[in-house]
Order: sequence, then C-alpha cells, then structure tokens
Amino acid sequence: MSTHRRHHGQHEEAPHHHGHSHAGEDMLSVEEAYERVMASFAPLEGVEVPLLESMGQTLAEDITSPLALPPLANSGMDGYALQGADIAGASQDSPRRLPVVGIVAAGQMPERPVEAGVAMRIMTGAPVPDGADTVVPFEETDEVQRKTEGRPLDEVAIFSEMPVGANVRPAGEDIQPGELVLEAGTAIRAAEVGVLASLGLAQVKVVRRPIVSVLATGDELETAGSALSGGKIYDSNSFGVAASVVACGGVPRLLGIARDNLDDLHAKLAATAGSDLVITSAGVSKGDYDIVKDVLEQRGSMNFWSVRMRPAKPLAFGHLRGDGDKDVPLLGLPGNPVSAMVAFEMFARPAILAMLGRPVRPRPAVDGVLTGAIRNYDGRRVYARVEVEKRDGVYYATPTGPQGSNILTSMSRANGLAICPEDLPAKHAGEQVRIIMLDWNEEVEL
Amino acid sequence: MSTHRRHHGQHEEAPHHHGHSHAGEDMLSVEEAYERVMASFAPLEGVEVPLLESMGQTLAEDITSPLALPPLANSGMDGYALQGADIAGASQDSPRRLPVVGIVAAGQMPERPVEAGVAMRIMTGAPVPDGADTVVPFEETDEVQRKTEGRPLDEVAIFSEMPVGANVRPAGEDIQPGELVLEAGTAIRAAEVGVLASLGLAQVKVVRRPIVSVLATGDELETAGSALSGGKIYDSNSFGVAASVVACGGVPRLLGIARDNLDDLHAKLAATAGSDLVITSAGVSKGDYDIVKDVLEQRGSMNFWSVRMRPAKPLAFGHLRGDGDKDVPLLGLPGNPVSAMVAFEMFARPAILAMLGRPVRPRPAVDGVLTGAIRNYDGRRVYARVEVEKRDGVYYATPTGPQGSNILTSMSRANGLAICPEDLPAKHAGEQVRIIMLDWNEEVEL
Repeated sequence: MSTHRRHHGQHEEAPHHHGHSHAGEDMLSVEEAYERVMASFAPLEGVEVPLLESMGQTLAEDITSPLALPPLANSGMDGYALQGADIAGASQDSPRRLPVVGIVAAGQMPERPVEAGVAMRIMTGAPVPDGADTVVPFEETDEVQRKTEGRPLDEVAIFSEMPVGANVRPAGEDIQPGELVLEAGTAIRAAEVGVLASLGLAQVKVVRRPIVSVLATGDELETAGSALSGGKIYDSNSFGVAASVVACGGVPRLLGIARDNLDDLHAKLAATAGSDLVITSAGVSKGDYDIVKDVLEQRGSMNFWSVRMRPAKPLAFGHLRGDGDKDVPLLGLPGNPVSAMVAFEMFARPAILAMLGRPVRPRPAVDGVLTGAIRNYDGRRVYARVEVEKRDGVYYATPTGPQGSNILTSMSRANGLAICPEDLPAKHAGEQVRIIMLDWNEEVEL
Repeated sequence: MSTHRRHHGQHEEAPHHHGHSHAGEDMLSVEEAYERVMASFAPLEGVEVPLLESMGQTLAEDITSPLALPPLANSGMDGYALQGADIAGASQDSPRRLPVVGIVAAGQMPERPVEAGVAMRIMTGAPVPDGADTVVPFEETDEVQRKTEGRPLDEVAIFSEMPVGANVRPAGEDIQPGELVLEAGTAIRAAEVGVLASLGLAQVKVVRRPIVSVLATGDELETAGSALSGGKIYDSNSFGVAASVVACGGVPRLLGIARDNLDDLHAKLAATAGSDLVITSAGVSKGDYDIVKDVLEQRGSMNFWSVRMRPAKPLAFGHLRGDGDKDVPLLGLPGNPVSAMVAFEMFARPAILAMLGRPVRPRPAVDGVLTGAIRNYDGRRVYARVEVEKRDGVYYATPTGPQGSNILTSMSRANGLAICPEDLPAKHAGEQVRIIMLDWNEEVEL
C-alpha cells in the first residue's frame, strides 16, 4: 500500500503514515455509497408557480390543451383571401381581376364571408373569412403598384395561380383541443414556457425545489466579513456548498457554523426542520471532535460514514429523526473544501436532481491524455482535479497543481476530474484517462 | 427560386408565391447582422453583491488575497506534533517514547512551544506549535491502545520515523498574502464562491445583470390567464422571450402587449427607460400594421430590418433615443413564435452574454446525419428544428414535424437546429449536416 516517501510538497495528496489503513476496511465502494444515498430520494410533490418561475423546473402534471392552436384558420402571409378556384390559370400576362370586399387584420373577425369571384385583403395571423380557402401574397398581386400610383384598393389583379389552401394555416394545425401537449416530467425550457403561454396558462404545477439546509461545523471557523483571530480560518464550505445547491436548482438555507460540541450541534440542527436534505461539513472523521457522526447516531440513524475514494473518504450519510412525520436525510461532507466539493458532486448533486424530478445522469465524461501523474496510495478511487483542453481533436487533462484536499484554488482552476481506478497504483503522464467534465460548456471545443 | 408546388401540409415552411423575392434584396447575411448587433454591446459596470448572489456571474474586479491561506502552519492529520529528528529510526520493534505536553485543537492556539524530546497532541487543522516540524498520525502511535486500555495520554510511543515536515501544511501553502487569486472576468462557479469565502469576502463586485424589457405587439394578442375572444390568440412570445432572458442570466422586465397603433406603442416604450436592451416581437415585417419599424425610425435609428435566414427574416435592430444620456438598443423579433426564439438564440443571447462579461462563444455544434429533408426556397440560411440523438457514435438529426414558424411545439420537441446553407436548394435525408446544439447537456450521450 503506502510506501515511505522522503519528499514533502509533491503534487499529490499523500498520507505520511505506514500501511495501517486497509482499502475495504469499513469503506463502501463509490457505487454502493451512491446506491444507498439515492435510495432515499424521489421527486418532491408538485406546486403551482407563476409561469415564468417554472423556467428550468420539471413539469409535475400532464398538460392537455384547452383549445385549438391556432384557434381559427388564419393567414400565413399579408395578401388576399379568396377561393383558389377563381385564380386557376392566372399569370403575369393574364391576371385575374377581383373586387375587394373588405379587410381583416390580426385580432379582428372578418365582417363577411368571401364568395366566389371576390377577394378580401388579409394580414398575417388574421382569421381567414368563411368561404375563402387560399391566400395570395401581395407579391403576386398589383398591391404595391396600386399603392405607389395612389389608386384605390377596391380591386386587385392576381398574377399567379396558387394551390388551394396556400398560405392558410388550418385551425388546430399545431395543437388540437384535448391533445396531450406536454407530459409530467418534462424539463421546462424557454420553448415549453412559450407553449404553456400559448395555451393561456398563467400558472403551472412544477416539482417543488428542495430546501437544503447547509451547516458548517468546527471551532476554527469564522464567517466571511468578520475579523479573523488566531488559529481561525474562514468558513468556505457553507458558501461553496450553498452555491452548488443553487447551481443544481435547490434552495439553500444557510444555518451558519456549529461549534465542536454536542449542545451547539443539536441546537443548530433544530433549524433544519422542514428541510428536504441537510448537508453538513466536517465532523465525520475519526478525531476527538468529529461529532456529526455522534449526533447522527443519537438522533437518527447512520447509514455509512466512509467511502473508498480520494478525496472525500470520510463521508457520512444517514437520517435525522424528524420532529413530525418524516426523517430528514443528512449528508455529512468532509471538512476539507475540495473533499466537500467532490463529495457534493458525486452524491449531493444527484440527490437534488432526483428530488427535482430531473433525469439523474452522470456528468458528461470523455477519454483523454493525462499530462501529469495521478498517484493512488491506498486502493481508493482517486478523482484528481484537472484542466481539460482539446487540441487537434484530443482531450488533454493537466492536474491543477497541488492536490491536497485543503487546496481549494486547485478546484477553482479545474474543469474536470480525472479518475485513477481503485486497483491501479498510479496513472502516469501520457496514459489514457477517463475524465468527468465538471463544466461542460462552450469552454471546451467539441 | 421557388417553384410551384401542389401539395399543402408538407413538412417544411414553404412560401406559396413565385420568385419575386430575391436573396440579397435588403437582406443582410447572418454574419453581418451579428456583427452589427454585437458592436452595440459590451460588459456592463460592476456592482457589489452578497457573496452567494455572485454565483454564475462574472467577477468585475481582480481579487488579491488579504491573508495567507492557510493563515498558520497546521496539521493535516489527527496525531502528535513533534520535532522530526526525535523519531529518526523509530519502528514497531523500537518505538520512541515521548512525554505529551498538551493538546491543540482546530481553532485554538497552542499553549506552549514543542521543544526537542516532547510531543503535543494535535487535531486536523490545528496550528502546529512553535518548535514542532512534523505530525505523526495516531495510526503510527500507541494512541488507540492507550485509550482502549484506559491509560493516561501523558506519554506516547511512536512506531515509525517520518520525513521532517510530514503532515504539516505550511502557512500560505494555497495562497500568499497579496497574491492575485481571481482575475476580473472570471466566471464565478461554486469553487470560486468557496475561494472568495475563504478569503473572508462577504461581498464581491460582479458585472451587473442586464435589464431586458420585453414587449409583445399585436391587436390579436391576449395575456395568459384571461379569456380568449374571437380572432385572438394568447401571447406566447413575452413569456418565451422572458424565459430565454432568465436562462441567459438577464433580468426580464415584462411590459405586456402594445396594440398595433403608434400611440400605444409609444406609451409602452416609455416604460423601457433604464433598460439595457428592449426586445419586441412582431411589427417588423411589411404589413400595414408593422409599426415597430416606424417607431424605431421616429424615435431612434434603424440599423437593419431583414436578415437572410429562415425563420426570422423580418428582424429589426436599432436604437431608441434615451431620455437621458444613452440610447437603448432595440431588437425587434418577428412575431411568429419559432422565428422569435431562433432570432433570440442567434442575436439576443450573444448580446446578453456580452453585457454579462461572459465569453460570447457559439453554441456547441456537431456534424450529423439528417434523417429528413430541409428545403431552401429562396437563398436564405435555413435553421431547421431537429431532435438530435447519438447512436453508435453518430449524431442523427430528425426534423421535429411541421416546420412552420408558427408551430411552437416543433421548437419544444427540438434540441438542435440543423443548417441548410444559403447556396443549397436543400439538404436531403442521409446527407451530412451541421447542427447547432440548443441543449447540450446530459441528454445527448457524448
């Protein structure tokens, strides 16, 4: 397993102790931990929200249309509504001349039908008058010429024949009354918001966003904005975790910092009532003050507290007994900020997506070439922070400097996590590696 | 150009008129229109926001660190702080026994230094006492044995030597005081929020989100939630555009519906004061009631109003004269909902990203195989709504049913836009096609 190394400051997170830790000892595989976490999460109930707020959420009801869309047959062009049979054979050289019996604009109802031998001026989107079956666009008539010459629009010359039905959008062309338009479970994007608006729906039922209580623990923590006294550091996990919750679509509830004693932790956990998930950081390892585990055992149940991964081996999952009807799942992230972020990525994000009713799919992953080594000291699955670039069609993954789990800037520089499997002692520079893409966006050329 | 076709209801948006329209006539290329729009947009000014609100925004200031991180050398393990020279040659068979002179936990300051020949119990994250240079983890000592046997912790046996510096995280290992940590222009993700919190910053200056006024025009429009009378349809563009603005990171301001007369349009446009962008829909074509163009000419300036693309050829861009110091850009989208969404995608989204200080990169695009034809009637660039799937490593693009620009459900079913270039009359089934991915996410396997 681990070997004695003389060098300090190497670019991997390396434990300086001899092989007393054993892979497998109390540790779950990443997959088993994932299964156990996900067994506790399902889509939340539906809630009515104003239409625009539904953007990005999941539809919690089937939407059947209360109307036809378009409601009435209407014109697809500005032109003349008429009976197509009247203009058979019309051409530039042999135009058909028809009297114009009126005009209809979008939002109006035609004042009369259109019988054989007449035409009605019509604007795009206006209802096609009864009797008419075809619209001839201005471009195929003497409309512009008449207007230019100041002649009245009481007659029109048609310069070409048209197939019957041309430029008429039939009623219900897009949607029939009673038609199932969007199914429960659909992700609501801008197009879906538009469709829902076109049906006249001002509110819609979506899967409720989960409330995620976020609690940091540690006597050493101060909150950003206050002064830092000796031996203290600023709490970054509360904000990093809360920002990740926002990014997933959850609603973070910041509970602040619990000190390393049971009384304070119990008091802070009282504020988690009504949460769908509690995420703590620190307090889940083996030290004297690692009391999140103790509290979980006292007022709930512990499912697991150690996963065969690096970073984020000390990772607890369990349930707090609810005051009322239901237990609240608690994910106890490690205290080191990188460990907390990687553990969030692997377990909290899928849990939140599941509660939101979204498809829980892994992040996109690619195969690439590693440009620096990833070491594996003790048979855990290693997730190394890397910066991924694509050059000449090949992805290259470069470790982002020191990989200590306390080095949060290495996470800030990363857009991916390269994997060294449990059963390999290392992945070396030049080797192929699997990379989980954290930011799959325009920054990586496809 | 266009040919006379007898069939109605085919799957392409086909104008039923003869070749009186000419590619190039008043129409800008997509590229030229894009250049002209983008010339009017730059990152907005910076504004201080609470740290958590900065998530997803762009940093508007360089961040240099006010402190070292970690502030003090601290322990990476639970164990014993000592002088490494004292344990040279220690082993299981020949342990070093040292008196324990105290304990230091995270958040405390050590009560005394550690001289040669003694050890201090130390917890992960606690400051390393003066004099000590090495931390030996519990696992390499008789700590557990002593605790199990109930023996006092006033002495410790060390079972292995350690390199000097082992398990000590030096002060400033991650960040030095005065170091440039994040540059202005950085996209703020959860990791950056965490880094900013770790520096003690409770607020941060980000590029302000643009206010985008959204105005629908048309006598035929009703707002969702109200009853629909004859000849009317529900306004979907206001909501679809506003949802798109939200998705880009802008702040929509819904101005409602302007009727098709200049008085009402002028009145509604008065409410755009203070906006960074005005987006209207409809009123930009050649009909009698297409007055957005007129208004733009009366109270501002028109840059262009026609682009060689399908859908969304009638697309106006110009500026409204501001009441105060600055003119407000106005993008006049077409009225057909699909045209409005495609035009938003091509022009409004990049404009909003530019104002947000984000990299304005095109959406990801892939090459795929078309499974149904895309027709090009008149030398415009055609963006056809397609559903993209990847099978056996190949992308397949299937047109999503009727392609009329009024058929919004075809946009809802699409996750991409397949392109037929200006100079080709069609792309046929089986041909290679370039596809702009609208939803590049986990739904398309990589």
